[in-house]
Amino acid sequence: MDKEVDYSLCWLEYSKIDDEPYREKLSKVVKNIIAVGQDKFTQTAVEELKTAVTSLVGFEPEVSKEALCGDNPISGIIVGNVTDALIMKYISDDEIQKLDEEGYVIKSVKENPGLVVIGSKNGHGLVYGAFSFIKHIQLKRDVEEVHIIDNPKCKLRLLNHWDNMDGTVERGYAGRSIFFCDNKVTNSLGRIKDYARLLSSIGINGVVINNVNVNKNAIWLITPKYLGDLAKLADVFRQYGIKIYLSINFASPIYIGKLKTADPLDEDVIKWWKETAKTIYEYIPDFGGFLVKADSEFNPGPYKFGRDHADGANMLAEALAPYGGIVIWRCFVYNCTQDWRDTKTDRAKAAYDIFKPLDGKFAENVVLQVKYGPMDFQVREPVSPLFGGLERTNQLIELQITQEYTGQQIDLCYLATMWKEVLEFDTYAKGPESKVKYVVDGTLFNNKYSGFAGVSNVGSDKNWTGHWLAQANLYAFGMLAWDHSFTPEEIAREWCVRALTNDPFAVETIVSMLMRSWRVYEKYTAPLGIGWMVTPHTHYGPSVDGYEYSKWGTYHRADTKAIGIDRSVKSGTGFAGQYHRENAAMFESMETCPEELLLFFHRVPYDYVLKSGETLIQHIYNTHFEGAEEAEKLKEDWVKIKDYIRKDIYEDVLERFNRQIENAKEWRDVVNSYFYRKTGIPDKYGRKIY
Amino acid sequence: MDKEVDYSLCWLEYSKIDDEPYREKLSKVVKNIIAVGQDKFTQTAVEELKTAVTSLVGFEPEVSKEALCGDNPISGIIVGNVTDALIMKYISDDEIQKLDEEGYVIKSVKENPGLVVIGSKNGHGLVYGAFSFIKHIQLKRDVEEVHIIDNPKCKLRLLNHWDNMDGTVERGYAGRSIFFCDNKVTNSLGRIKDYARLLSSIGINGVVINNVNVNKNAIWLITPKYLGDLAKLADVFRQYGIKIYLSINFASPIYIGKLKTADPLDEDVIKWWKETAKTIYEYIPDFGGFLVKADSEFNPGPYKFGRDHADGANMLAEALAPYGGIVIWRCFVYNCTQDWRDTKTDRAKAAYDIFKPLDGKFAENVVLQVKYGPMDFQVREPVSPLFGGLERTNQLIELQITQEYTGQQIDLCYLATMWKEVLEFDTYAKGPESKVKYVVDGTLFNNKYSGFAGVSNVGSDKNWTGHWLAQANLYAFGMLAWDHSFTPEEIAREWCVRALTNDPFAVETIVSMLMRSWRVYEKYTAPLGIGWMVTPHTHYGPSVDGYEYSKWGTYHRADTKAIGIDRSVKSGTGFAGQYHRENAAMFESMETCPEELLLFFHRVPYDYVLKSGETLIQHIYNTHFEGAEEAEKLKEDWVKIKDYIRKDIYEDVLERFNRQIENAKEWRDVVNSYFYRKTGIPDKYGRKIY
Repeated sequence: MDKEVDYSLCWLEYSKIDDEPYREKLSKVVKNIIAVGQDKFTQTAVEELKTAVTSLVGFEPEVSKEALCGDNPISGIIVGNVTDALIMKYISDDEIQKLDEEGYVIKSVKENPGLVVIGSKNGHGLVYGAFSFIKHIQLKRDVEEVHIIDNPKCKLRLLNHWDNMDGTVERGYAGRSIFFCDNKVTNSLGRIKDYARLLSSIGINGVVINNVNVNKNAIWLITPKYLGDLAKLADVFRQYGIKIYLSINFASPIYIGKLKTADPLDEDVIKWWKETAKTIYEYIPDFGGFLVKADSEFNPGPYKFGRDHADGANMLAEALAPYGGIVIWRCFVYNCTQDWRDTKTDRAKAAYDIFKPLDGKFAENVVLQVKYGPMDFQVREPVSPLFGGLERTNQLIELQITQEYTGQQIDLCYLATMWKEVLEFDTYAKGPESKVKYVVDGTLFNNKYSGFAGVSNVGSDKNWTGHWLAQANLYAFGMLAWDHSFTPEEIAREWCVRALTNDPFAVETIVSMLMRSWRVYEKYTAPLGIGWMVTPHTHYGPSVDGYEYSKWGTYHRADTKAIGIDRSVKSGTGFAGQYHRENAAMFESMETCPEELLLFFHRVPYDYVLKSGETLIQHIYNTHFEGAEEAEKLKEDWVKIKDYIRKDIYEDVLERFNRQIENAKEWRDVVNSYFYRKTGIPDKYGRKIY
Repeated sequence: MDKEVDYSLCWLEYSKIDDEPYREKLSKVVKNIIAVGQDKFTQTAVEELKTAVTSLVGFEPEVSKEALCGDNPISGIIVGNVTDALIMKYISDDEIQKLDEEGYVIKSVKENPGLVVIGSKNGHGLVYGAFSFIKHIQLKRDVEEVHIIDNPKCKLRLLNHWDNMDGTVERGYAGRSIFFCDNKVTNSLGRIKDYARLLSSIGINGVVINNVNVNKNAIWLITPKYLGDLAKLADVFRQYGIKIYLSINFASPIYIGKLKTADPLDEDVIKWWKETAKTIYEYIPDFGGFLVKADSEFNPGPYKFGRDHADGANMLAEALAPYGGIVIWRCFVYNCTQDWRDTKTDRAKAAYDIFKPLDGKFAENVVLQVKYGPMDFQVREPVSPLFGGLERTNQLIELQITQEYTGQQIDLCYLATMWKEVLEFDTYAKGPESKVKYVVDGTLFNNKYSGFAGVSNVGSDKNWTGHWLAQANLYAFGMLAWDHSFTPEEIAREWCVRALTNDPFAVETIVSMLMRSWRVYEKYTAPLGIGWMVTPHTHYGPSVDGYEYSKWGTYHRADTKAIGIDRSVKSGTGFAGQYHRENAAMFESMETCPEELLLFFHRVPYDYVLKSGETLIQHIYNTHFEGAEEAEKLKEDWVKIKDYIRKDIYEDVLERFNRQIENAKEWRDVVNSYFYRKTGIPDKYGRKIY
């Protein structure tokens, strides 16, 4: 790498634009940057524009802090607040009306060719506007025709880092933590700044920097022991409009405060949290708030003290409210010591059963964070019935960018295609068009807070994400959180051009690879929504019975005749009944249940004939043979575009494909052998099964 | 515990004998101890006798270093070498003839009532004699009738500790290492001395103190960095006739010597090992030798340099020979990255295939260490065909005292019953009565070195072995290594009386529990010799397919019709053919194969009818229901003897039984459900299967 830093800057790498006529045209506009305001966001926006132009176009633009000389219109980029006279000159009241708090306008001034205005109502938007303009020129769009008025659809666009203070990352597949090392907060602020730039460029406005499982030293992050160092991180992120949040341990009053209880209704506990909040805000005035994993997988919570989740969350919310902070409370609560013999208890039902009765009981600065499906980030799950189920509660959708169950950044799996399906799912909460996307953007139920939380796939690797192509997942998460109307395909294309190559053949090849990758991964892993056939603990590679006799509530119950869980109301666990009527009816019946979720909702005999005309068992064989073949095809495609990809990236990715192919074969053979040995039914095409 | 030390002394606890007439009779003998010699072993023997008598009888005996006054016979214990005039006076030439190097004689002098002589040819024997006499009185045997001439049957009676320098113990279930902590050698020599006492009292004469997997700091144990500290350990053990040995890393010349190779035929490598041996013996003049796990489970070995095991072992042996040291070379060599799809490769065959061709090629101070079965310490395996197969090679049988696959010192599993079966197995190497016990005692092939190596079950727990009753396994190992003619039952009884209680009802209850425990454990775990149905990595609890699609060569290949591996010559992997004719024929056929090993040697349909009249599948169900019930019976028996057991021991053991019962139920239900789901065949007695 011929850069000063030893890591990639992903889609902010800025290779010089090789299209000379375009560069020529562009040069007229970008040679001047006029910064109207003096605030930090204007500085950030200007700095980013300058950096980008210098690399992309090849010269350093002149930056003036003055207004234009006299009334003479000149060419250049004017960056400023829409209340500034100079900006108001070019932006109409109507346009200003359309801007939200974080929105921006970019406008080429018709009457003044070569002049582009970037304006926002407050500072944040200017930074987004600057990055948007940079994207515009990276994609070689016409600068003379630009006219964008853009607002984020969701208020909260957050990343969750599952980083531990010892430097490990839970479910991290891209190296070590960039925030922590040896139980200290990092002082490598250069990399943190570059991370903030990457995140801001895709619209992220908050990062939870520590693991939701808060143990050992991490419990003390909310104390002066670490707050000084955290404040330095916050300073870096603040420049880019990003707040920092912390995961907390609900029992902190006991661990840190030496109190006898962490009961959320106890006066001393309430007082302790208020004092703690006060201290935090002294160090970090714009601290975002707390993320809480309570009463979940061995983490303490209000249950321990005979209270419910609303009691717990509201108490914390009251402590943060004076400072504008929020409490993000996870709904990932279920019995993780279930007896596998118990067929009545259904983990899928737990979150709804627990949180639906609390709907409307949470303080206005509490946001519930709900995993997209009722289980845990499987390659295929139905959408959680809490979306549409909670009608009077702020909520975030939790997506997993890190590929815990989806190939661990060894196997290619572009997740935007899955996320898009989830967002487009119609909950029917208020009749048709009550889609998940309208729940999480807050419009359906008019929430004060709502949005996206993504479990980060980032680590200290030079490409940040382990697999170079997994950058696309981080990119897509930001783009969808900003505006869920983007299609996965256009996001993939944008990312590819900005980060990898602009050769049309290579771009289309990569877009095609990304677009089909999720389905390929699904094909060679657990079939038809049943999930969980992974190696215990690591969650990579096949182990069909690995979670079958476990305490985790994760069962397929395959026997010699049938497989799947009956979650119907009529004869099963009743999970299907947690949805609104239309969906409940759809999932209830084997005939109307979407086939990709068939085994999630129904117990199905192996000789059941699917819509394809194949039996269930034959479908399992077919998809597994196909999936492994298609994994090989991914590699073949990659090899074809070798000449268009930087050598080190090409080799790194090739090595991943080789590993993916091995993994896919192992999945194919283990799953097929498992079912062949269990059913005795041969593959009708006579392919090799062991 | 009302002792100075915070750990048990096991069978050397010495509670006062509560039988007053016996104590009275005894007092006459034990009031005087006459130490003839002045050497260290005499000192040790006298010290042990004195300690024991003081506690057991209630007074401190008088110790005189002088001979008897004049010719007047007095009562007392005379301890000394059989070449001493005073001893020779009472011990006949004939008796002396019968003594081996480590043997001893204990004799009550008829013509001089109240006088007992303990004599040996060299010092070691005196210590054994002293402990033997102590046992004699603990068991309240007649001191006036005592006449024992005893020699160990095997020359090498070794423990292997799989202790790591960070203080962990691989496959240890009894706390931390007693030898290492924080990458240092322990300086808690008090506990080491008590350990030496325990081992010497059961006849152990060597300990390998570090893990056979030699990594990181442990590689440097053979250098002056640690030899000073090791010498202090050796000093403690030496008092008790125990030598210390070290496991080494075969690539040490590269790691430590900075050589480019560890090729055993390379001059520099040879020289390096010679110098290393010289240095070691400067620190520890009676150093036992090296234990080597080479070319095994990722450990380096001669293969890496194109050499064979004989090349590797002989090179090391040459370095140790001048000092009387030996090389113990493990035969646990197999392909641990097998493809589960490959049905031709059979891990069971590996050790014989590799080492049989090298028979006769090893130096005379090399000993091969062979696990009792061809796989890895499963609850049931056939005896390794290397026993009887190797005819011109020194060999040790490797037994696993630590209960890796046999309940991990949570579940009760007295292993002497299994070991006894192994020792009684007739190899037919030289016709009938070529039993394994005659191989390992060296008589069958007239070996210079042979004996037992046991993987220790000891750690820092106060009872040394995690489960109090697991002490019986350590005790039994020593007893069998000393004299394989002991029965498991008499060993159990001895241990129980010495270590736990002498109430007859309690003793018989415990002996019965111990005697049936292995079979109980076998019943609820993997059936009929198939093995391996354990949770991967931890090896506790059931996972029927846990090692089925793995790289470890461990498969049951159960399908809907049959289970088991055909290892016959005619139609299978040919493993059965590695035995001598009589055994090969027996294992070859399903009819003559011992039923408990049926699935190890044969692929058997579930409806195959066993000798019991039950089908295979019904046998699996039956044994698993029985095993879980019998585990509950063990606890019931324990509860019955509550009043005879010290309270803390009673509670500790009760807690283990509760865990065992849970484990047994889990095994029962998982195994039964697995096979029911796979075969669809119901239990004919209609018991609950999930």
